[in-house]
Amino acid sequence: MQCEWNQLAVRKYPPKILQTKLQLPIKTLTSPGPTNCSKRVLQSLQNQIIGHLHPEICQLMDEIKEGLQYVFQTNNRLTLALSASGHGGMEACLTNLLEPGETVLIVKHGIWGKRAADMATRIGANVKLIEKEHTTAVTLKQLETALQAYNPVAVFMVQAESSTGLKQPLEGFGDLVHRYNALLIVDTVASLCGEPFFMDSWGIDAVYSGSQKVLGAPPGLAPISFSPRAEKKLFQRKTKPMSYYLDMTLLGNYWKCFGNENRLYHHTISATLIYGLREALAEIADEGLQASWIRHAGAAARLRKGLELRRLRSYVKIPQYQLSTVISIELPPGVDDRIIVQRCMQKYKVEISRGLGPTEGKILRIGLLGINATPNKVDLILRALDDALRYVSLSKL
Amino acid sequence: MQCEWNQLAVRKYPPKILQTKLQLPIKTLTSPGPTNCSKRVLQSLQNQIIGHLHPEICQLMDEIKEGLQYVFQTNNRLTLALSASGHGGMEACLTNLLEPGETVLIVKHGIWGKRAADMATRIGANVKLIEKEHTTAVTLKQLETALQAYNPVAVFMVQAESSTGLKQPLEGFGDLVHRYNALLIVDTVASLCGEPFFMDSWGIDAVYSGSQKVLGAPPGLAPISFSPRAEKKLFQRKTKPMSYYLDMTLLGNYWKCFGNENRLYHHTISATLIYGLREALAEIADEGLQASWIRHAGAAARLRKGLELRRLRSYVKIPQYQLSTVISIELPPGVDDRIIVQRCMQKYKVEISRGLGPTEGKILRIGLLGINATPNKVDLILRALDDALRYVSLSKL
Repeated sequence: MQCEWNQLAVRKYPPKILQTKLQLPIKTLTSPGPTNCSKRVLQSLQNQIIGHLHPEICQLMDEIKEGLQYVFQTNNRLTLALSASGHGGMEACLTNLLEPGETVLIVKHGIWGKRAADMATRIGANVKLIEKEHTTAVTLKQLETALQAYNPVAVFMVQAESSTGLKQPLEGFGDLVHRYNALLIVDTVASLCGEPFFMDSWGIDAVYSGSQKVLGAPPGLAPISFSPRAEKKLFQRKTKPMSYYLDMTLLGNYWKCFGNENRLYHHTISATLIYGLREALAEIADEGLQASWIRHAGAAARLRKGLELRRLRSYVKIPQYQLSTVISIELPPGVDDRIIVQRCMQKYKVEISRGLGPTEGKILRIGLLGINATPNKVDLILRALDDALRYVSLSKL
Repeated sequence: MQCEWNQLAVRKYPPKILQTKLQLPIKTLTSPGPTNCSKRVLQSLQNQIIGHLHPEICQLMDEIKEGLQYVFQTNNRLTLALSASGHGGMEACLTNLLEPGETVLIVKHGIWGKRAADMATRIGANVKLIEKEHTTAVTLKQLETALQAYNPVAVFMVQAESSTGLKQPLEGFGDLVHRYNALLIVDTVASLCGEPFFMDSWGIDAVYSGSQKVLGAPPGLAPISFSPRAEKKLFQRKTKPMSYYLDMTLLGNYWKCFGNENRLYHHTISATLIYGLREALAEIADEGLQASWIRHAGAAARLRKGLELRRLRSYVKIPQYQLSTVISIELPPGVDDRIIVQRCMQKYKVEISRGLGPTEGKILRIGLLGINATPNKVDLILRALDDALRYVSLSKL
């Protein structure tokens, strides 16, 4: 038997590249995400694995659920973390809350609205868009006009459009959407814990985020919550959601959200990522949500002031539409964004991002997320930027 | 502004439970998975996060791709790790390779075939089953009869049915399935690196696994590979796959599988899980795939011998259908499986599993995966079992 294996196995040898030792640099991740993890979070990740239904993991899942209810400011029982990235959260909201042929109204300021439209089209929904310019938010009046025109079953909005740095105000939108018998889905990937967000007070029916942004956990989990209204829709669907993996009724049973006595096995959750998210939520709980919002607002104000002094202009002009978590800057004329980004990384190990999608080549983006939303990090970014801008102008001489 | 936040935020306070310190036990995970991680893998997890498109992560993704090509024994360029559990791998194969209305033939020995049927039904495929008893595999002849009857576009088989301990032989099945112009999809979640598997030699078109089984990485990633034949189907589809998150053409662009010059952003991969999988693959490459198969076969043989001495009977009787990675044992008459499992965990921190789905209450399952496939761990399991069986019979007196 070993002979047979030998003959067959020799077709492919172990790759030499895997003989090298893993060596990684430490960088200041001030793009719109992921961000750096705290020591406490990183230390938790080296704990030995525990089974996906063991009491210790179930306990941590319960703690995470409570922590997520706190950061979403909700009492929704259907609150959990998906075993997927933020994109998985977007897909879960759309796949669970739309049936083929139903109409969804998507507010599109940048790439996230576009992405949501792609996903909704794949599952056979009828997609209607409110296309906004990149630097102003949609108003209640504009949304109402579209609700009247399209009569959707759901509306999709993005609180923090990280491709442009635009903040979409959300107060009042839940009530409006409910008056038209629709559900309100909100993306908080780049804002949760960095910008005020009140799921219940604002009447939001489905929300998701990413673990690797302000929360400060490693990437790989997507916090998500559904309101009772959204839950009702789940249980009244005529068809099953097209995804088993993202089916919120099955996930709710695994996370014991429906008052069920036993957890029902759905998939193998990542113990490692659960440790990290639990510790990240514990740190937010220690600091307090409001303190975290204030810290992010303060760091953003300091950065904006520094940028102003350097005559760098904000891409989003209207202050109420400016995010604290993602600051977008107009690229000065004649400056190559690639060189800026490279120089900041090479010399300072500081990450600054170029534009994304429609803003590519037009802006720079700086993320102040989680442990990086501090005066020290802001000052480091400004030093790196100064040097990079000087370098660009020198290299032109 | 802070006032407004205060008024709204006080509706929900930080949960007290998050004030406790994270404290976790260390267990011997000898269920069918997840298994324990090595020290090297665990240490890698505490490295600081790096961006999902940074050169260091791209380098690790390339290394992982090579490592996966090695463990799958394939030259397929479309080889990568999904940001999902093994269930996500199953869904990715079905969602990408089936269009609504197409017929898929599923070999069902236990819960995994059933799960695949559920997923395929959700995406609108026409599902045909070969339902087998739990302890014998499907033969080439039986499959051919079904291929003639149903004319499917794809066949789904499970190499290691972890709910029963059944090994499905795979040699010759690829050629047969191809003669009927269908694609062969194989689940290797509970077998990869523990049982011989030769993707290219066996003509398998799509395969997936889980990072947390024999590979010995943390849960959260699903290795997957598509053959050129499967890739062709991807690019000839009339409809887009219903999932953006699991779309293999987009993922292939992100993993740079199609000879594309630049990686296209698709989602934020988990740097933490990438570190762990890279190190786990490096350890397999160090040991050698054949050595790993032989080690698993040896550990299984030692366990089976020990069970025989204790007059415990294998649930799968025919040796060629017995897995090395998951050993299933008939529950002796009158023995409460819950008590056995509890006693092994409480006194020895050794995990043994009950049956799952159709085998619940009928069998015990022991997993010998990755670093736990050693004589020492086998002896520990047998000691724990002896004690638990003694405990059960004493408690009956």
